[in-house]
Amino acid sequence: MPTEFVLTPEEMPRQWYNIVPDLPEPLPPPQDPEGGGKRLEFLGKVMIKECLRQDATPDRWVDIPEGILELYQQAGRPRQLFRAKRLEEYLKTPARLYYKAEFYSPTGSHKVNTALAQAYYAGKQGLERLTTETGAGQWGTALSYAACLADLECTVYWVRAVHKWKPQRKAFMNMYGAKVFASPSHNTEAGRNLLKEDPNHPGSLGIAISEGLEDASHDPKSAYALGSCLNHVLMHQTIIGLEAKKQFEKAGDYPDVVISCLGGGSNFGGFAIPFYHDVLKRNKKIKFLAAQSESAPNLQGEYRYDYADHAELAPQMKMYTLGHHIKMVPIKGDGLRYHAASPILSLLRHRGMLDTVAYPPDEKYVFEKTKLFVQKEGFLPAPESAYSVCAAIDEALACKEKNEQKVIAFNISGHGLLDLDGYQEVLKF
Amino acid sequence: MPTEFVLTPEEMPRQWYNIVPDLPEPLPPPQDPEGGGKRLEFLGKVMIKECLRQDATPDRWVDIPEGILELYQQAGRPRQLFRAKRLEEYLKTPARLYYKAEFYSPTGSHKVNTALAQAYYAGKQGLERLTTETGAGQWGTALSYAACLADLECTVYWVRAVHKWKPQRKAFMNMYGAKVFASPSHNTEAGRNLLKEDPNHPGSLGIAISEGLEDASHDPKSAYALGSCLNHVLMHQTIIGLEAKKQFEKAGDYPDVVISCLGGGSNFGGFAIPFYHDVLKRNKKIKFLAAQSESAPNLQGEYRYDYADHAELAPQMKMYTLGHHIKMVPIKGDGLRYHAASPILSLLRHRGMLDTVAYPPDEKYVFEKTKLFVQKEGFLPAPESAYSVCAAIDEALACKEKNEQKVIAFNISGHGLLDLDGYQEVLKF
Repeated sequence: MPTEFVLTPEEMPRQWYNIVPDLPEPLPPPQDPEGGGKRLEFLGKVMIKECLRQDATPDRWVDIPEGILELYQQAGRPRQLFRAKRLEEYLKTPARLYYKAEFYSPTGSHKVNTALAQAYYAGKQGLERLTTETGAGQWGTALSYAACLADLECTVYWVRAVHKWKPQRKAFMNMYGAKVFASPSHNTEAGRNLLKEDPNHPGSLGIAISEGLEDASHDPKSAYALGSCLNHVLMHQTIIGLEAKKQFEKAGDYPDVVISCLGGGSNFGGFAIPFYHDVLKRNKKIKFLAAQSESAPNLQGEYRYDYADHAELAPQMKMYTLGHHIKMVPIKGDGLRYHAASPILSLLRHRGMLDTVAYPPDEKYVFEKTKLFVQKEGFLPAPESAYSVCAAIDEALACKEKNEQKVIAFNISGHGLLDLDGYQEVLKF
Repeated sequence: MPTEFVLTPEEMPRQWYNIVPDLPEPLPPPQDPEGGGKRLEFLGKVMIKECLRQDATPDRWVDIPEGILELYQQAGRPRQLFRAKRLEEYLKTPARLYYKAEFYSPTGSHKVNTALAQAYYAGKQGLERLTTETGAGQWGTALSYAACLADLECTVYWVRAVHKWKPQRKAFMNMYGAKVFASPSHNTEAGRNLLKEDPNHPGSLGIAISEGLEDASHDPKSAYALGSCLNHVLMHQTIIGLEAKKQFEKAGDYPDVVISCLGGGSNFGGFAIPFYHDVLKRNKKIKFLAAQSESAPNLQGEYRYDYADHAELAPQMKMYTLGHHIKMVPIKGDGLRYHAASPILSLLRHRGMLDTVAYPPDEKYVFEKTKLFVQKEGFLPAPESAYSVCAAIDEALACKEKNEQKVIAFNISGHGLLDLDGYQEVLKF
């Protein structure tokens, strides 16, 4: 019996799915709390025009341009769906487990799916450079890669505290020719002001966003690219779930439970949204489960308007949020440390269509389960993806207890090859 | 035009190719220089029986057992063949370049192809544990992975000098549950004797091999697994080239030049040997080119009987060799630092069917070319695979000069995600 389901490049989906027109109620628009639209105007200036247009498009299906399909091929898409047969047997669960292999990506994560699209559109717009921020480094690497393939320059502002202890990831971005600056930096006024106060300022994601935005705003040939949360980002990521659906057809199976980890929401959304389509339009019944950390359980926050960034440069969006100034305990799955969930997923949560589980921040529980996965399936997930794996195993064990033959689908959004020290520290090898 | 050629699991080759019966002259057998066959007997005791049988089989085509085909699927086989369209355009070469993506492997290299086969046969034989040595760490990781999937234990003796500065790779092996010892260790008499002389002995590949062999010889439920050089290892690796040939059919193309890096010969052999079949049996004309380092240009050595290991525990084989006690300058592409080339490839070299190029050991030339590849194609090769990339680019530039429309095929045997510090050091980011 096959355990690997493969699509050829010819079978790759040709359209992204935009869930916005199918949502059970209209998506609350971004807003500028003081009115006047100052922040909306600023975003309009610094962001890629086609991405802004897609963010508000009423179209349900959006054609993927031939150029982006070629880039997806170049990045090794489509990616496999695996049946976790060995894990099932070990767990002695009647459940059937399937996982999507987004870790087989040139930079190691699903982030390339939107990075390539954004870089492509930036090139078409005649831009010459992209700026961005990065925290853990996955997004910065993906954008460096995509910019490179689209013949654009790339400037990455990287939270200084993280930048310092990840020299290998910095070298990876440099291989792609990106310019990487520890943030706060001397490149921007925001950075210079902070360095005047404290020359060793550790930085934060909020500060790095401010620097990326400021840098792009001073250069008409530059735009700022965002890696999560926004509608167009989630739409680009639906390539994951659209492929997975075709692969489930080949497997002759269909999920009862769809699981992924959720920080800002781009990997969860990309994997789950095509399945939401079946629930919203075809009366399918699926349990959606977001795996989070107790360090940042944003789906257990409040559903209200809040800023996406620390420095309040971008407009407010209606989201499940912990507050944009909340302090979050450091965890190895750093990509899950975000104060709010994307507006689309927040609305689905608000309508009772998205469950969530949050795991303790010492990560022992999560990483022990992940080690089991590694030993049975052989792949090393990123610390963030470890949460998906853990939640899937917990669901499979619940099925065993109740003797339920459910089909559980989960996404492994990235590999952990550049995060092995994190596993080592927690599991104490 | 497609740039990615994909096989489904159903299209995966069902047999390995054993070139030995097709070689232009009989392969000289291993020998014990003092006669008596002491070393041959020892090998017979510590190695996996089916592997020993395969090493001497007269069969041209050897069925891949269903269990190994399943393991290959689990490891994500078949792997893609890519057309390097972007690189071609950048180089403005009339040549067409194709590369095989062995880097899309759970542990990051082609080594899993034989590790999985050996672990499977060990399990069938009723063994409970595999021992091995590792230098750079790729082979140790691949065997840890394979042992894990075959429910075997795994003990890795790792050259102490390397072990010390690769804690991440050690954590990777530990995730698979392997026991990893810095060699020389206190586990074996060989190790204890050396540590008595020098408690900080840096170790060597030869010493680690001795420890692995000694450990396995004391335990009837254990066997020693080797990752390169031997006939059965190269045969398991032919899955690479056999897939590539099917993919070239899909591309409607065929290589004039076949290139890969060569240390002991398992990745070169695995990629090239199925194409040698076409040369030997179908009168095809192909240039075969092995990319090496001036640190270990073993194909420029002497063709004579020599030991495969430093400690002279294993029998002698007829190989191109630099002498088994040669000192080799350290390089980042550590997997290329082996004193001899596999007997099969040595014989082909002896018959004038294998060209070679050796690059300077400072690796600047090689890594600069590789950076170009990274920026055009997006994938980060292992430092060893960088030599394949460099030789392919040099061939493509030669085609440009002569205006030749050659088809150049090369293998990227692994990724460099755990070797980024090496690139950083040489390219000085």
